[in-house]
Amino acid sequence: MSNLTINADRLIGHIEELGRLGRDEQGRLVRVAASDMDRLGRDRLVAWLQEAGLDVAVDRIGNIFGIWQDDTNAGQAPVMLGSHIDTVIDAGIYDGCYGVLAGLEAIESLKEAGFAPARPIVVAAFTNEEGVRYAPDMMGSLVYAGGLDVEEALATVGTDGSVLGKELERIGYAGPHEPGFLDPHAYVELHVEQGPVLEREGIALGAVENLQGISWQRIVIDGVANHAGTTPMAMRSDAGVAAARAIVFLADRAAASPTPTVATVGTIAFEPNAINVIPSRATFTVDLRDSDEARLGEEEAALAAFLGGLATSANVSIRTERLARFAPVTFDPRIVSLIEDCALANGFSCRRMTSGAGHDAQMIARVAPSAMIFVPSRGGISHNPAEFTAAGHVAAGANILLGVAARLAAD
Amino acid sequence: MSNLTINADRLIGHIEELGRLGRDEQGRLVRVAASDMDRLGRDRLVAWLQEAGLDVAVDRIGNIFGIWQDDTNAGQAPVMLGSHIDTVIDAGIYDGCYGVLAGLEAIESLKEAGFAPARPIVVAAFTNEEGVRYAPDMMGSLVYAGGLDVEEALATVGTDGSVLGKELERIGYAGPHEPGFLDPHAYVELHVEQGPVLEREGIALGAVENLQGISWQRIVIDGVANHAGTTPMAMRSDAGVAAARAIVFLADRAAASPTPTVATVGTIAFEPNAINVIPSRATFTVDLRDSDEARLGEEEAALAAFLGGLATSANVSIRTERLARFAPVTFDPRIVSLIEDCALANGFSCRRMTSGAGHDAQMIARVAPSAMIFVPSRGGISHNPAEFTAAGHVAAGANILLGVAARLAAD
Ligand SMILES: NC(=O)NCCC(=O)O
Ligand SMILES: NC(=O)NCCC(=O)O
Repeated sequence: MSNLTINADRLIGHIEELGRLGRDEQGRLVRVAASDMDRLGRDRLVAWLQEAGLDVAVDRIGNIFGIWQDDTNAGQAPVMLGSHIDTVIDAGIYDGCYGVLAGLEAIESLKEAGFAPARPIVVAAFTNEEGVRYAPDMMGSLVYAGGLDVEEALATVGTDGSVLGKELERIGYAGPHEPGFLDPHAYVELHVEQGPVLEREGIALGAVENLQGISWQRIVIDGVANHAGTTPMAMRSDAGVAAARAIVFLADRAAASPTPTVATVGTIAFEPNAINVIPSRATFTVDLRDSDEARLGEEEAALAAFLGGLATSANVSIRTERLARFAPVTFDPRIVSLIEDCALANGFSCRRMTSGAGHDAQMIARVAPSAMIFVPSRGGISHNPAEFTAAGHVAAGANILLGVAARLAAD
Repeated sequence: MSNLTINADRLIGHIEELGRLGRDEQGRLVRVAASDMDRLGRDRLVAWLQEAGLDVAVDRIGNIFGIWQDDTNAGQAPVMLGSHIDTVIDAGIYDGCYGVLAGLEAIESLKEAGFAPARPIVVAAFTNEEGVRYAPDMMGSLVYAGGLDVEEALATVGTDGSVLGKELERIGYAGPHEPGFLDPHAYVELHVEQGPVLEREGIALGAVENLQGISWQRIVIDGVANHAGTTPMAMRSDAGVAAARAIVFLADRAAASPTPTVATVGTIAFEPNAINVIPSRATFTVDLRDSDEARLGEEEAALAAFLGGLATSANVSIRTERLARFAPVTFDPRIVSLIEDCALANGFSCRRMTSGAGHDAQMIARVAPSAMIFVPSRGGISHNPAEFTAAGHVAAGANILLGVAARLAAD
């Protein structure tokens, strides 16, 4: 089995080809969930799954599965390899796609080598992992794992006012299967690190043993629109200045934290958004993360307390809406060890690590033993078109995925 | 002449009728310059000017003039009464419209009373006073006064990417006259105060003797997009946090200023504007005002120095674009005295004051003796649908405008 390897050229060809699909007029990759751009990517993936001889199944939340099974193993709980192919706005080509296409590559290579697994092996592409168009993120895998009702998820209204269920129907990916219809024996997700640790330490592979908690909120601040020239500073109720104070508070607090807490305000809008009008409303999102649940709770409480004081001091009213909340996750220690063993057996350096990003594995971990494999991201850059992982690292990660999948499917 | 009065019901009827034109689906008044909504307002105004028997003339920048002249006074330099009918987004009904419609009302009342002026009297509605769609503000009067080349103004690209000249053609208001074709003997603008002073002091009328300087800038901050979950706080180049620091700096500095400096950030946008992506770019506008030119320069310099330091400390690059810059203006002391005299002769309380808002009068003051009359704004609220001036104040201001115009046109 240690002689089995993936076809690196084919894998990289697939990654680059998928990365050309779903670009806007400015050339930006914008394959946000359930959009026309997403359909382009999905159609291509399904064609590849079919070419590889896999059974393709789509569930009601639009998750796509490519199933490799035969008469000898049908009915056994499958080994699932997966990730997502939706992207952020102006994305790189690796985030998500790498894990899905490496899963397909591992299956194709095992098939071609005549490997006969004792269990089906399935490659999965989960819907709306990024959460950019519809919150929460990791929605497809969350629904799959029973953590969110499928009807509720389908009714989600996006940042553009669209409804996820209607969009999935429109693009032809509202499938017939109930989410959870396959009950995995194990789940393994290969992903680019999206952070700087592996590159900085010169290590080829990460065996991901846990994943930070994620708290997403939308904050709406209401002040009073008034004239920029005639309204004395002391008489203002400026929603924009109040929002700016909250953003500075979050950044300064996270920077000063003794733990590696991160806080991000990625979106903002003012109303009426006119140069000489004091903003009557400011709406922004907060993304807070910490690998310790108690610490994450403290960060949320500190923000709430700050906003309480701000409402008074800035003479505004503030309301908060929760968009996503996931506790930190610990992965299955046996699969983490298996990844480490497989990496070392193949001569790669490997370290255990925490994931800073959310991943579908954190949802599937609710229903099946799960873990993740990371490869280095150049400069730690992700959610940016400059996202890049060298071909050698791409191949190394996929070979370890193949090895781990073969081992998990062997009995 | 002191027996002449305006018809308050007709004036208020006109203000309310114009205030119903140019509303969006949410009922907001959005008659921004040279839009379809603006055309609705312009068409109605022109119809009223014609019904009043005035000669209607439109110049190349879209300024509309209703000219009352006869064989005895044609050729004399006219007395001009004016303001604007474009609005901000979600505006009140008085700002600008009051001055134009009171000018029309004064002319109609003088005509009906058989008053025979020694000079023509003209009512003017200047294009794009608000500056919300196209910068700078007061553009039509600025061009009229020769402060901005008409071709350059017509080439202005708006916040929505439209070109002013093309929009004026489209709505039928690219007129044949050269801006400046009428050379006013004097210019008087009646306006709602848009600030709290008159109401707070219980005074009916303001004789405006000067007007603050205005500095408008667009600031573009470039950072690096990266993943909200994986990027340590210390490794970020977050354009959004940098923008928030600048907004807080401006607000705190203006609030602490010993002079009544005002600073406003009315617009903002993040890119890519996604919840889990560190903003790669933040674009916002700054509106700085002070009635002292040296102080305004100090405020601009302080902002520039702050941004210079911020570029280093926040690891971003920052560029600044000037959108408008007008020095403070002192109005003609004889017209200011005439307003005061006329107010007192009619039994109204009156005080001299500074205008916090920019007005077309500040541009026309470059080419003709000019001044302004203010009436109280309830709660000091403007650029807000709650903008309101009581009928008694509306009538009082228009009567003083009539009296001042009659006096200025008498010889
Ligand atoms: N891996 C990844 O970028 N996931 C998106 C969800 C998040 O972590 O914000
Ligand atoms: N009067 C008025 O609101 N003018 C708009 C220009 C400004 O002062 O911002």
